[in-house]
Amino acid sequence: MESVSLTDKSVTDFLAAVRSPEPTPGGGSTAALAGAMGASLFAMVAGLPKSRATTAEDIARLAAAGARCTALADELKALIDRDSEAYQQVMAAYRLPKAVDEEKAARTKAIQLAMRAATDAPLDVMRACADAAEQGVVVATMGNPSASSDAAVGFELLGAGLRGAKLNVEINLGSIKDGEYVKKVQGQIEELERALAHETKAARQAS
Amino acid sequence: MESVSLTDKSVTDFLAAVRSPEPTPGGGSTAALAGAMGASLFAMVAGLPKSRATTAEDIARLAAAGARCTALADELKALIDRDSEAYQQVMAAYRLPKAVDEEKAARTKAIQLAMRAATDAPLDVMRACADAAEQGVVVATMGNPSASSDAAVGFELLGAGLRGAKLNVEINLGSIKDGEYVKKVQGQIEELERALAHETKAARQAS
Repeated sequence: MESVSLTDKSVTDFLAAVRSPEPTPGGGSTAALAGAMGASLFAMVAGLPKSRATTAEDIARLAAAGARCTALADELKALIDRDSEAYQQVMAAYRLPKAVDEEKAARTKAIQLAMRAATDAPLDVMRACADAAEQGVVVATMGNPSASSDAAVGFELLGAGLRGAKLNVEINLGSIKDGEYVKKVQGQIEELERALAHETKAARQAS
Repeated sequence: MESVSLTDKSVTDFLAAVRSPEPTPGGGSTAALAGAMGASLFAMVAGLPKSRATTAEDIARLAAAGARCTALADELKALIDRDSEAYQQVMAAYRLPKAVDEEKAARTKAIQLAMRAATDAPLDVMRACADAAEQGVVVATMGNPSASSDAAVGFELLGAGLRGAKLNVEINLGSIKDGEYVKKVQGQIEELERALAHETKAARQAS
């Protein structure tokens, strides 16, 4: 269990916590941090002087993309903790007593609830990464061209964040009994992965 | 200029520093951190009980892979700072006086030296990511199968780290006048990218 927020830790201590044999923070939290770094790079590039936005409309569009990336970076940062906490709830549910039928039923219900939350967290990471990539097209097209490699690194990090989160959605989905929810989420993850690939390609062509 | 090491900062403050319009930390440092997270995930998985290594030889191989990933994670962590510092040296060199011929010559020499260091840092990030991916094949094959998604996220992060660093190598290489060095590095980055793709595929097939 974490006594402090993972994001209050120093980078050194966060990496040490990843490396430790404790189950959290693991792949889910690191994927969220990769996404947060990608969105932060876009926010940085959007805020640089000497952008390619010259009309008032484009200047406003670039500023809006930067502001949105800042908000998404904060959301992804919060998901670093949320992902680990959700996984800790799953482990806590598995540790519930199961001696009698009533306990078994309560435990199963708790596991299913916790698994839903542990699936929703990386699904939200995927969503935020795809959203940031959409803004990233604006940033890569209109931002200061001398920061083009920073924007391109942003797409790499968002790709790792989204696909890393997807691996966690899928593994948790395997334990969820609500077939309708499973099917809905499977559709969403495919759509989000497609969206990111589309935006990444658009940014490459535009910049 | 950074007054403290970037890795002594909290995750929150590190992300804020990325987001700020200051040129460092930028894509290079975030790529190094992505790589450090990937290597750390492998070290974590290698250290988990219930591995698939049963013979003494395999147990030793998995432990060695874990130890190597721990060392590579530390190296990548150090590169978070080294990349930003190298870029600050480039900017400092560009600010040198250039009023007379002697100053011009000294400035050009300083820029070339700083550019070399700023190319070597992300090149070392690429090397460390490729090395970690090689160890990751052992980890993904022999580590506890219930942590397979953590190992797979590790490969995503190392891929983003290596390709993100590559973007920085390439952009700096464009300013380097030593043709022999440029050619040598171009060969190395191709080889490192191929190595990572090969290891990633091998891990997917083995796990």
